[in-house]
Amino acid sequence: MNCKIKCLREKMKELDLDGMIITNEININYIIGTKAEGIIAITDKDNIFMTDTRYIEDVNSVITIEDEINIIDISNLSESDYLTFFSNCNKVGIEENNISYAKYLKYIRLFRIKEAVETNNLIEKQRMIKDDNEINNIRQACKITDNCFNHLLNYIKIGMTEKQIALEIYKFFIENGAETTAFETIVASGENSSKPHAFPTDRKIKYGDNIVIDFGAKYKSYCSDMTRTIFVGNVTDEIKELYNFILSCQIRTTNKIKHDMDGKEITESLEKEFNCRNYGLIHALGHGVGLDVHEMPYLSYRSSYILKENMIVTNEPGIYIPGKLGIRIEDTILVNRMKSEVLTTSNKEIIVI
Amino acid sequence: MNCKIKCLREKMKELDLDGMIITNEININYIIGTKAEGIIAITDKDNIFMTDTRYIEDVNSVITIEDEINIIDISNLSESDYLTFFSNCNKVGIEENNISYAKYLKYIRLFRIKEAVETNNLIEKQRMIKDDNEINNIRQACKITDNCFNHLLNYIKIGMTEKQIALEIYKFFIENGAETTAFETIVASGENSSKPHAFPTDRKIKYGDNIVIDFGAKYKSYCSDMTRTIFVGNVTDEIKELYNFILSCQIRTTNKIKHDMDGKEITESLEKEFNCRNYGLIHALGHGVGLDVHEMPYLSYRSSYILKENMIVTNEPGIYIPGKLGIRIEDTILVNRMKSEVLTTSNKEIIVI
Repeated sequence: MNCKIKCLREKMKELDLDGMIITNEININYIIGTKAEGIIAITDKDNIFMTDTRYIEDVNSVITIEDEINIIDISNLSESDYLTFFSNCNKVGIEENNISYAKYLKYIRLFRIKEAVETNNLIEKQRMIKDDNEINNIRQACKITDNCFNHLLNYIKIGMTEKQIALEIYKFFIENGAETTAFETIVASGENSSKPHAFPTDRKIKYGDNIVIDFGAKYKSYCSDMTRTIFVGNVTDEIKELYNFILSCQIRTTNKIKHDMDGKEITESLEKEFNCRNYGLIHALGHGVGLDVHEMPYLSYRSSYILKENMIVTNEPGIYIPGKLGIRIEDTILVNRMKSEVLTTSNKEIIVI
Repeated sequence: MNCKIKCLREKMKELDLDGMIITNEININYIIGTKAEGIIAITDKDNIFMTDTRYIEDVNSVITIEDEINIIDISNLSESDYLTFFSNCNKVGIEENNISYAKYLKYIRLFRIKEAVETNNLIEKQRMIKDDNEINNIRQACKITDNCFNHLLNYIKIGMTEKQIALEIYKFFIENGAETTAFETIVASGENSSKPHAFPTDRKIKYGDNIVIDFGAKYKSYCSDMTRTIFVGNVTDEIKELYNFILSCQIRTTNKIKHDMDGKEITESLEKEFNCRNYGLIHALGHGVGLDVHEMPYLSYRSSYILKENMIVTNEPGIYIPGKLGIRIEDTILVNRMKSEVLTTSNKEIIVI
């Protein structure tokens, strides 16, 4: 059986679940290995992907007999067919954070579910630990991102707009084997960089600007996420000092990211360093990266996540001075037992172009 | 008060609702006029947008005092604050097709909702009729799409890949005032074109190919949607005949699209024409276009939607011969009382490049 379903079935057993309805499209991609609309029904006897004619050909080309997944065209299902799937199941898990209230009511009725049980991100938690294939895909996404950064260092010129640079990133990704960007690219220059989630604008790059570039590629559905802050023409000593402070924090937190460490504790110790200099930590320190660019675990002071081997997370401390500038440095990191591996390897010393 | 909320409040009165919780992000964009995460609470006294610091500055720059929308930073809200919003409301509408089951449970508890009522796409239905500003935005998105098509006729050359052409569309949009593409562009050549939802591949354009290009721009959050099928070097008489048949169908259905006509009936009469030639209608004839590229009303044999003045819909008949080719012709159309206006005006006679 498909390893991911096998693992899921074990977790279901722990929760005393006889069945589960999977509606989250990223979880479906995780399990069947391709993007397709539909739902997965894990029943006492079968693993069933209910989809429609648009996807059947593609799904069949990806899954094998070893996966033990039956693909069913929903247009062939009658009301009475639905009744059979969970007829022997007492407790059926649902993805309460994903399923709409209307679909919840519909499936309860359609499948005649005896007891629907909230599964509290069961598959999202399973997705935290990456297998070799997943790691390789993310590694490749990171490599494309690194190559793109090198390209940008020659490409960016005074007078270009932020939008132009973001477009070049997209173009580079597509032309170098990525499916697309992993998320909406941030290219924020000068005063625009003080907003952590700035969108690229028509602002033109000027002499003396800093530019925050936060970008990532998607490779075989898997994401990378990296930020570099570079400088144009000149960087003042004051800003150099601030940059080097953030860089030293980023390196210290990177060294702490390993098996059995708590993301919350790492974040809190960074926050202390920031506070000593009268800066606030205005966003989380990092997040998991996988099929989704933001996924569990989170490295934040809000909640505790113990890091484990083969998790992949970001580490992105940033300082923002409203109306003036922002500096952020971010890597995608593979958690190991001893020294973790930084998958995005672009230079992070001060770069002046 | 904001016209859209005023209209919504009238519809709520008809449903005997004292309040409503709006969670659908496109509906929120529709009402406040910009993209921002959060929820809108329409209570007996106030219109409240609950959001966080990431969006407050932007939202404040868009809404005016006339909108009568209070913006609240959720981080300032205590549990007891939540209790006050709907305390005088007996029936509170929820967007059952959008709200997750978990959020449904959370809001019922947090706001202490007496009775939550499903609103059955209340705002989606309101969004079907476009105001002048919405029409102008869609008109502009269509204009950028037309200009892009003209550009492509000179750009596309034998040996280019489908992906390259899709990238050029994205580039043209960004460089010509669009925010982004309205949806994932389809560039499907030769045998790839027989899949209605093909993704661009590395297949190279060859002499004798047909190319289905289904694309649209997003302008100020509003979408356009157009498909043209063009030919490379040569087109056989047999395919010419098929193309002209689809074009004649597309023109006939365009002439039927006007105020008070039923989308279902228009689709059924097209299906008859197709069936007479032993072709099937394998997807809907069209759909509404607005903030979402696929929205109500739908022109399909599945359900009846009476078209009304100032709806904007697509008209996209297509024929697909598996493993061989597909031909689709699509326009975005503004529904009028008399003659509807085709907003995408690109040439749809046979084009051989």
